[in-house]
Amino acid sequence: MSSSQSAHVKMTEQALTELGMRAFAGLGVPPEHATDACQVMLLADLFGISTHGFSRIESYGERLQLKGISAVANLSFERPAPGLVLVDGNNGLGPVVGMATLRATMAAAKTQGIAIGLARASNHFGPVSPYSYLAAEAGFASIIGSNATTTMAPWGGSDARVGNSPMGVGVPGPDGQHFLLDIAISFAARAKIRSALKAGRPIPDTWATDAQGRPTTDPAKALDGFLQPIGGHKGYGLALFVDLFAGLLSNAAYLTHVQSWLEAPEQPQNLGHFYILINTRLLGSSDWLASRMRDFAQILHDSPAAEADEPVKVPGEIELARLAQQRREGIEIDTVTLECLKRFAARAV
Amino acid sequence: MSSSQSAHVKMTEQALTELGMRAFAGLGVPPEHATDACQVMLLADLFGISTHGFSRIESYGERLQLKGISAVANLSFERPAPGLVLVDGNNGLGPVVGMATLRATMAAAKTQGIAIGLARASNHFGPVSPYSYLAAEAGFASIIGSNATTTMAPWGGSDARVGNSPMGVGVPGPDGQHFLLDIAISFAARAKIRSALKAGRPIPDTWATDAQGRPTTDPAKALDGFLQPIGGHKGYGLALFVDLFAGLLSNAAYLTHVQSWLEAPEQPQNLGHFYILINTRLLGSSDWLASRMRDFAQILHDSPAAEADEPVKVPGEIELARLAQQRREGIEIDTVTLECLKRFAARAV
Repeated sequence: MSSSQSAHVKMTEQALTELGMRAFAGLGVPPEHATDACQVMLLADLFGISTHGFSRIESYGERLQLKGISAVANLSFERPAPGLVLVDGNNGLGPVVGMATLRATMAAAKTQGIAIGLARASNHFGPVSPYSYLAAEAGFASIIGSNATTTMAPWGGSDARVGNSPMGVGVPGPDGQHFLLDIAISFAARAKIRSALKAGRPIPDTWATDAQGRPTTDPAKALDGFLQPIGGHKGYGLALFVDLFAGLLSNAAYLTHVQSWLEAPEQPQNLGHFYILINTRLLGSSDWLASRMRDFAQILHDSPAAEADEPVKVPGEIELARLAQQRREGIEIDTVTLECLKRFAARAV
Repeated sequence: MSSSQSAHVKMTEQALTELGMRAFAGLGVPPEHATDACQVMLLADLFGISTHGFSRIESYGERLQLKGISAVANLSFERPAPGLVLVDGNNGLGPVVGMATLRATMAAAKTQGIAIGLARASNHFGPVSPYSYLAAEAGFASIIGSNATTTMAPWGGSDARVGNSPMGVGVPGPDGQHFLLDIAISFAARAKIRSALKAGRPIPDTWATDAQGRPTTDPAKALDGFLQPIGGHKGYGLALFVDLFAGLLSNAAYLTHVQSWLEAPEQPQNLGHFYILINTRLLGSSDWLASRMRDFAQILHDSPAAEADEPVKVPGEIELARLAQQRREGIEIDTVTLECLKRFAARAV
């Protein structure tokens, strides 16, 4: 969002990772955990999802310093059944808990065919696509989600009781062309409403409600109100699904029990995540899957474009193209993020 | 949809089931399969989803008579890993394949903690909520979906290549108050566009596109065009997710490979379904889950209603209330459906 206003530099993967590792060291995070956090944040930046990449070092760093997130977390694991992996994140960094859960769930799904990892006592874990990408690279189809601070009203309600929870789906494609869907359940982001306000434009009445829960086309009223979920009651139901799996079934906080990292950065959030992973290699040969995935994408691409210069895309194509480009040409990092990384890195002994 | 225009009768569960069993017998379906089909259709009617209840006997009956659906199907099962259940439906009735897959997947998830059932060579399986309800009654959380004939354009495309695939989620609640989400991925149903056309009203530009794939507010152009998914590219991605799991991973048909039962009722559709089931009893005690689910619903109900006479609901509440009411007062069946059931039943020996 800030990318149009601020200066950028280009960094290699290696230089950015090394700086990230030093920044986390400066914040007291042990190297084995910093490695996981850096991998998720690096992939987010490589995919072009810079709002969820290394720019998050600022809020993660603030909360680590306030002890709202534990720099040295002792994760623990339970396996009450062959397909169930329960992770207590011990209030560690979200990407650390997320990566540990991903690995443990892949190990279980490898032989069982399917497994679910449920993590509790966690924090903001970044975007979903780095996890679905790593799962797809290892042959796993995935459904992954996390709950979040409540910012949306229930459908028909008028105060914040539902998180704009992220969820994603991945399916391994041929030659790294994986299907990668990564969405939040709101129709529009708040940034788009702020743009409309600046431009003096009304917004569609499906984007947000006013503070009383009534749909509005006035961007000012919308910013005082609540984001609307996609498809009205349908998106409301999907947001609840993610919270039920990520928060309620995982024994983490859910709905209004989730602490806001903005309002109480020094408090543990007790966020939860879920990872459902399916070992596609037990369903058929790699060739079988690759040829079906190639055909699937081809059918979609062959639909004549409604706008001639906007060909039909499969979810993940934009991010994977950006990944390839930035691996060749360097990763775009805004200078504010760079300064923040350097500031934390300077504290490392 | 037709409920406002046609006459209705009230029937007991037992009388409706007996008539349904005789109708399927008249169509050559063996009793053990008819029992499964009747259970799904009965639950759909009990939930008030009459468009997907016994009214479907008409299209099922037509296709059974044309041999487009096999009355006597030999289902077969594979278990390539403890958590994977692969079902070949042998072109049987959708609810028959669906119920068999549900049962086999519950059996696997019971000990494994989680399992996925993938069915191929199937047909229209009804709504999702009867399956999620039965799963929830047995203690399983669920994600269930089916693919469908293509009626939607890909996001940015301009011809029908994506199905308006149904998906649903269930989580067991206290005293049968389960969370039950059952949605298709389109923003609105075609019936709502037809109503707008009749009333001479424009439609919101998020409901449908014209035949060239451009959003339209003209209901006539919309009916020549394509339904839009919820949340634009987000719903497009969700529809693809359902097709990837239900169709592509299951080795069934997907996207345009799915035969239309309207245009080619005599052809097998090779539809696919997926059932992801999690045994919640291995996650914690029934009391633990019941108290969390009660609290979850309470938080949502306590949100002040935007419209005073429309209190906030949790997905499933409307259907479960209708179930309780119709179990007490009888099930509303329209006379067209009743006549159709009687016509098929009259052919039974």
